[in-house]
Amino acid sequence: MADSLNEADPLAARILASFRAQSMMTTFGARIVHVGPGLCRIAAPILPGARQQQGYGHAALTFGLGDTAAGYAALTVIDERSEVITAEIKINLLAPATGGRLLAEGRVIKPGRRLIVVQSDVWVETGGDRQHVAILTGTMVPVPA
Amino acid sequence: MADSLNEADPLAARILASFRAQSMMTTFGARIVHVGPGLCRIAAPILPGARQQQGYGHAALTFGLGDTAAGYAALTVIDERSEVITAEIKINLLAPATGGRLLAEGRVIKPGRRLIVVQSDVWVETGGDRQHVAILTGTMVPVPA
Amino acid sequence: MADSLNEADPLAARILASFRAQSMMTTFGARIVHVGPGLCRIAAPILPGARQQQGYGHAALTFGLGDTAAGYAALTVIDERSEVITAEIKINLLAPATGGRLLAEGRVIKPGRRLIVVQSDVWVETGGDRQHVAILTGTMVPVPA
Amino acid sequence: MADSLNEADPLAARILASFRAQSMMTTFGARIVHVGPGLCRIAAPILPGARQQQGYGHAALTFGLGDTAAGYAALTVIDERSEVITAEIKINLLAPATGGRLLAEGRVIKPGRRLIVVQSDVWVETGGDRQHVAILTGTMVPVPA
Repeated sequence: MADSLNEADPLAARILASFRAQSMMTTFGARIVHVGPGLCRIAAPILPGARQQQGYGHAALTFGLGDTAAGYAALTVIDERSEVITAEIKINLLAPATGGRLLAEGRVIKPGRRLIVVQSDVWVETGGDRQHVAILTGTMVPVPA
Repeated sequence: MADSLNEADPLAARILASFRAQSMMTTFGARIVHVGPGLCRIAAPILPGARQQQGYGHAALTFGLGDTAAGYAALTVIDERSEVITAEIKINLLAPATGGRLLAEGRVIKPGRRLIVVQSDVWVETGGDRQHVAILTGTMVPVPA
Repeated sequence: MADSLNEADPLAARILASFRAQSMMTTFGARIVHVGPGLCRIAAPILPGARQQQGYGHAALTFGLGDTAAGYAALTVIDERSEVITAEIKINLLAPATGGRLLAEGRVIKPGRRLIVVQSDVWVETGGDRQHVAILTGTMVPVPA
Repeated sequence: MADSLNEADPLAARILASFRAQSMMTTFGARIVHVGPGLCRIAAPILPGARQQQGYGHAALTFGLGDTAAGYAALTVIDERSEVITAEIKINLLAPATGGRLLAEGRVIKPGRRLIVVQSDVWVETGGDRQHVAILTGTMVPVPA
C-alpha cells in the first residue's frame, strides 16, 4: 500500500504530529499509511525487539498498532480542539504475527459526542499474501486537547 | 516489592527462561518479580521509548505487561510440556500511566484443560503510593510447547 | 427479510432443532430467519416482558440474540457431532433498542478446531429503516454434542 | 443470603423502583438482595423459560443478571438525578448455569463523572455450595434521568 498521507491537509497534519509524539510508535518502527474519514491505517515491521518467546510479533505490538489506528480513526470524527483516549479495547488474536509487516486498519463504527465505538483489523503481509492476525473492538472518549 | 523469584524452582526457572526470550519484555525493561500458584507479577519502568503523545505510558505497554503477567499466571497451572497463548483479552484503562514504575499482577480465575480464564490488574507506583491503571480479563489456551 | 430457512437441509434442520430446544428463544419470541455458511440471522420482537426501566429492549435481549446468532454461525463450520458453547463475548451497545423488531446477524471471523472467533451485529428495524443497536465479538468452543 | 434491602433508604428505594420497572427482571424472576456503596447483588432462579438447548440457564440470563447488578452498583456512586446505561460489557463464561439459583454481584472498580468501570461475578448456588459461573467487566455511563 502506498503512503497516501497528504500533509497539506490540516487533519492529516494534526494526526501526524500526534503520532510522531508517540515514542512507542517510533520504537515499533510504525508509520501511518492512510487517514480518511473514520479510518486510519498504520504499518509496522516486526522488529527484533518486539517479539514474544517463540519469535513471533508480541501481542503488545499487535495491540498497540490496532489501538492506535482505532484512536486516530476516532480523531477524524471529532472537533479539532479535542483528543481521544482509549476507555477500553478487546483484542481477539487469530493467528501468530509472523512474516513481513503488520498492517492495522482502524474504523469508526459509531461516532458520538461522548463515546466513539471503533474496530480494528490487523493483518500480516508477506509478499502478496496477507493473513488476518487480530480483531479489536473498543471505546474511545473525546477529551480536551 | 522485593524480587522473590526462586530460580532453583523448576517452574520459576521455566517461566524466567520463557520471559527472557521475549525481546519485547527486554525492550520494555520489564522483569518478573513474583511467581506463585496461579499468580505472576511483572514490574517495568515507563521508559522514554514507551510513551504516547502526552508523555504517559502507552497503552501497548500497560497491555503488554498485563497480558504477559496473565499468561505466566496461566502457565503455573498447566503441565510442563505445554505453553499458553492468548486467545483474547480486554483492557479497561482506569487512569494515565504516569509516575514511577508499573506493576502488573496476573491471576488465574478458572483453570481448565482447554481454556484458562485470567485477570490482571496494573498499577503505577510512585513513592509509597499506587494508582490503579488498568484491569484486564482474558482467555489463555494451552498449546504444546 | 423473508424466512429463507430450508428445513430439508440437514444443517438447517439440526440448527432449528437446537434453537427450538432453547426456551429462552421462545420466551423472547425469536426465530431464525437465515442460515448460511458461517452465517446466522435471528429476528425477534421487543416483547413487553423483555424491557429495561425506560421501556427499551433490555440489553439481555440484545445480547441473547447476538450471542445465539453467533453460536449458530459457528455451528455451520464444525462437524455434525459437535456443538458449540460461548467461552466469552463482548457487547458494545450503540443505541437504545426501540422500534419494531430486532435483527441479529452472527458471522464466523475465524474458524478453528479449538476456537471459533465470531462477530454479531444487532439492528432494530422500524418500517423500512434500521438502526445499528450493538456489535458483539466473541469466542465459541466446539464440544461433543 | 437474607434480603437486606432497606426500602426506607432513599437510594435503595430509587434502585428498587427502577428495578421493578425492568420487565425483563420480572420475566427472569429476579430480585435485588443487597445494595451497598458501589455494590449490588441480584438473585434469580433458573426458570423453565430461561434455558438454552441443553437445559442449562441461558447465557442471556447470566449476562442480564451480571449486567444489571453492575449497573445498579454504578448507580450507587452517581448523583440522584442521573441514571446509568451500559456502554459495553464482556462476559467470560466459566461453567454451565445449572443447579439452584443464580447470584450476581456487581461492583464499582473505578467511579467517574463520565465513565464508571464495573465488574460482576455470577455464581450458581446449590444447597450450601456455590460455583463460579461467569465474570463480567464493563463500562457504565451516567446519563440524565
